Amino acid sequence: MNKVFAIMVFIGVPISVIGSLLHWPSVLMFIIYCLTIVALASFMGRATESLAIVAGPRIGGLLNATFGNAVELIISIFSLQAGLTGVVLASLTGSVLGNLLLVAGMAFFIGGVKYKRQKFNVYDARHNSGLLIFAVIVAFVIPVVFSVNLTEAKTMNLSVGISIILIILYLAALFFKLVTHRGIYQDPESKQEEHEEEPEWGKGKSILVLAVATLAVAYVSENLVHTFEAVAKSFGWSELFIGIVIVAIVGNAAEHASAILMAYKNKMDIAVEIAFGSTLQISMFVAPVLVILSLFFNPSMPLVFTLPELVAMATSVLLTIVLANDGETNWFEGATLLAAYIIMGIGFYLL
Amino acid sequence: MNKVFAIMVFIGVPISVIGSLLHWPSVLMFIIYCLTIVALASFMGRATESLAIVAGPRIGGLLNATFGNAVELIISIFSLQAGLTGVVLASLTGSVLGNLLLVAGMAFFIGGVKYKRQKFNVYDARHNSGLLIFAVIVAFVIPVVFSVNLTEAKTMNLSVGISIILIILYLAALFFKLVTHRGIYQDPESKQEEHEEEPEWGKGKSILVLAVATLAVAYVSENLVHTFEAVAKSFGWSELFIGIVIVAIVGNAAEHASAILMAYKNKMDIAVEIAFGSTLQISMFVAPVLVILSLFFNPSMPLVFTLPELVAMATSVLLTIVLANDGETNWFEGATLLAAYIIMGIGFYLL
Amino acid sequence: MNKVFAIMVFIGVPISVIGSLLHWPSVLMFIIYCLTIVALASFMGRATESLAIVAGPRIGGLLNATFGNAVELIISIFSLQAGLTGVVLASLTGSVLGNLLLVAGMAFFIGGVKYKRQKFNVYDARHNSGLLIFAVIVAFVIPVVFSVNLTEAKTMNLSVGISIILIILYLAALFFKLVTHRGIYQDPESKQEEHEEEPEWGKGKSILVLAVATLAVAYVSENLVHTFEAVAKSFGWSELFIGIVIVAIVGNAAEHASAILMAYKNKMDIAVEIAFGSTLQISMFVAPVLVILSLFFNPSMPLVFTLPELVAMATSVLLTIVLANDGETNWFEGATLLAAYIIMGIGFYLL
Repeated sequence: MNKVFAIMVFIGVPISVIGSLLHWPSVLMFIIYCLTIVALASFMGRATESLAIVAGPRIGGLLNATFGNAVELIISIFSLQAGLTGVVLASLTGSVLGNLLLVAGMAFFIGGVKYKRQKFNVYDARHNSGLLIFAVIVAFVIPVVFSVNLTEAKTMNLSVGISIILIILYLAALFFKLVTHRGIYQDPESKQEEHEEEPEWGKGKSILVLAVATLAVAYVSENLVHTFEAVAKSFGWSELFIGIVIVAIVGNAAEHASAILMAYKNKMDIAVEIAFGSTLQISMFVAPVLVILSLFFNPSMPLVFTLPELVAMATSVLLTIVLANDGETNWFEGATLLAAYIIMGIGFYLL
Repeated sequence: MNKVFAIMVFIGVPISVIGSLLHWPSVLMFIIYCLTIVALASFMGRATESLAIVAGPRIGGLLNATFGNAVELIISIFSLQAGLTGVVLASLTGSVLGNLLLVAGMAFFIGGVKYKRQKFNVYDARHNSGLLIFAVIVAFVIPVVFSVNLTEAKTMNLSVGISIILIILYLAALFFKLVTHRGIYQDPESKQEEHEEEPEWGKGKSILVLAVATLAVAYVSENLVHTFEAVAKSFGWSELFIGIVIVAIVGNAAEHASAILMAYKNKMDIAVEIAFGSTLQISMFVAPVLVILSLFFNPSMPLVFTLPELVAMATSVLLTIVLANDGETNWFEGATLLAAYIIMGIGFYLL
Repeated sequence: MNKVFAIMVFIGVPISVIGSLLHWPSVLMFIIYCLTIVALASFMGRATESLAIVAGPRIGGLLNATFGNAVELIISIFSLQAGLTGVVLASLTGSVLGNLLLVAGMAFFIGGVKYKRQKFNVYDARHNSGLLIFAVIVAFVIPVVFSVNLTEAKTMNLSVGISIILIILYLAALFFKLVTHRGIYQDPESKQEEHEEEPEWGKGKSILVLAVATLAVAYVSENLVHTFEAVAKSFGWSELFIGIVIVAIVGNAAEHASAILMAYKNKMDIAVEIAFGSTLQISMFVAPVLVILSLFFNPSMPLVFTLPELVAMATSVLLTIVLANDGETNWFEGATLLAAYIIMGIGFYLL
């Protein structure tokens, strides 16, 4: 399988460059870009896995989330520059739904088909649950409700204020996990497991692969975005649907691949960290940074999602928290998350 | 007590038939029907209990929920045929509220007056919590929010799509409980208890009693429904109130009687399974089946509850999940659920 | 530190009396009143602590909540008489947000800076979680949603009905905690700790200090309220903001001081009991009593919060429940609650 992905990368990347320069048909390029990203994502997954074995599950998960979302941040900044604030909010929504429901759902389902019961660090899950509630149910809900009675300027002030607090709390969470409470909430059992395996690549090679693959994904992703309009016309999809569903699937391919791989190897701590950590990085770091950066563009982007976007995210968070609360997963919990994702997908397809 | 119910059945059923044929006054017949159903329900409860001892708590609970809700499904199909989609949605709401708040509330309260602390299988409770969130907070909330921006035809498409997913996930849940993860989440302690008791009736007699009583309840219930309009006028109740409150009390009398009986015998696994299982069967099977069947009637019934109905169900689910999360009950948790039911009752009475 | 507070009380109280009689400038008096209340609150905290050692954590927590909220009840009755129903609802909202987010947040944060992990009785926390969901998510949400389709008179009927049920359930909760289930959910470990310490003051002196300090706080608080309008003008704040934020900080200074002191001494059972118990007393006793009393005033006050108030309270309850669910706190959980409080504060400041 790894050889197939290697071949896909060594064919896909040059063809992506050539095809984009020669303006090949959009639908064809759309398929090539998607396959290339999936193949690159598998390399990122393997590099992350190697790093995770060296550095422990937390740093590994953080690294993965960071590399996965750097791409999204770059694409969104281009979109803001083009004045597409609605598309940016839609793709943020798509990333949250994609990570919480699709990535975690596939990981729980595929892991659960192999193992009857899979356990993960319940302390980390609860820590993440608190942050998910804070980011989505408090920080995203408040501006939508309050903006009804506020002027546009005051809504933007509220959005910037909330964004600053989100970023500060995100940094505080890193400080908490990596400095003041590092290793405090770790299961003694899970520690032993981790050090049994040998990393596939060394630290240096892993970082190199991760860096190069991320750059390649960024390049291909940006080209991919420009095919969306033509693809939307060909298939009769709305741009909102592409933003929410297609971007979520392809844009999170890296997290997706890694999380499923980890679940399949019964390393649920890392799988959960990827899915939840990525959601938190999107909602507590990428989204507020974009709101603040949007002050330099016209129009600025307030942190005001549409009601369908907000309700979809809020209900997904409640569902995820209730399912993850016991520190155990099985195939049926994965199926439940996937079913919720399909419901949201149908809804946004019809909007 | 059992003798009283036997007498009530042997008098109540023939009188119900005679009274309905001779068109006796509606309010009188309303009372006769209600008492007859309650008496029949006690037989269903005893038959279920006997079967539960033979077959284990899960199958027993499933059987009970199935027999209790078959009645509701039949009545609702007649209502759909008569074009009363609002009444069908109201009685679905009433069943959800009735099972979650009234049946579980009474079971916890009465069981809790006898026993200080009652425990039930916390794994089952969490599994059910996940499904409740999925069905009510995701699958019921999404169409209400999205339908604001959708045409009627697209709302119906969304409703049918969600209904199909609800039914598939319901069947997947049965497959999970009865096949792939049968007995895996069982407490070793509770297992011993179950096999100590002797069933009152054999397997054959239990099934026969259950079948005959269900048929009789179906017949009497249908007649009962036709007295509602006249009773509403006599007492000054709205039809919505009857759909939500009266149907919930009488229509769930079977589950009600069984659940309280089980709680009184400290078999909380079965009591909880009846209340939650019945709610899940209503929301994940009866409701979506009715939406799909409604395609053959005019008007069709989208899965779009009114805002008061939706908020009442969603808040009830959140309350129940928080209370049931620890796998323990006491009389005060029962009182809390009953207090919530009374608040909803007052609200719908005034609407 | 205690000496500083003693000096502040013996200077602050007479100056408050003199200043209010001589009509000193409002902004000056505002600062004097605030400092005096904070100093008085420290005496209440010490008295409560002494009583708590004698009487156990639960009664101590109840005592504190009672003395803290008596002040609020008295001020609100004066406000109702003046027809300021909006201000009363705003200050109820402020008390709920203040206790759940600010008081609990500061206690968790400051306690967490000293101790890595702090534990509290998880049974009490779950009991309180159930009541918080019941009071805020059920009893406060239902009238707001239903009132859209109700006449003013029926909304008032619904409000009174819900208020009666809230009060009954609040009394039932006391009966549960103090009579039928007293000590049943107590940790065997925490019991030992409690009796090691000597109370600072005897029972008699503690009660005397508590009573005198409460009276003084009531007197100063009432004067404080009358400076709000002038202060609002001076600082450019809205009256809603003062009701929600300033009243919450100063009006809950007593609970605030005690809760932080307890957290600092690692007595998290009492700290949590103060923050949650006070919230529950506001929402299940003070608010419904005010609704019923408002029937004697014109206009009456229905239990209908504005949407921003309701959403702020409901999301705070969800956040608190998810964080408190595991019976453990750390500085980061405190920081999360404080961050939520700041977000709400910015929102209400801009409204």
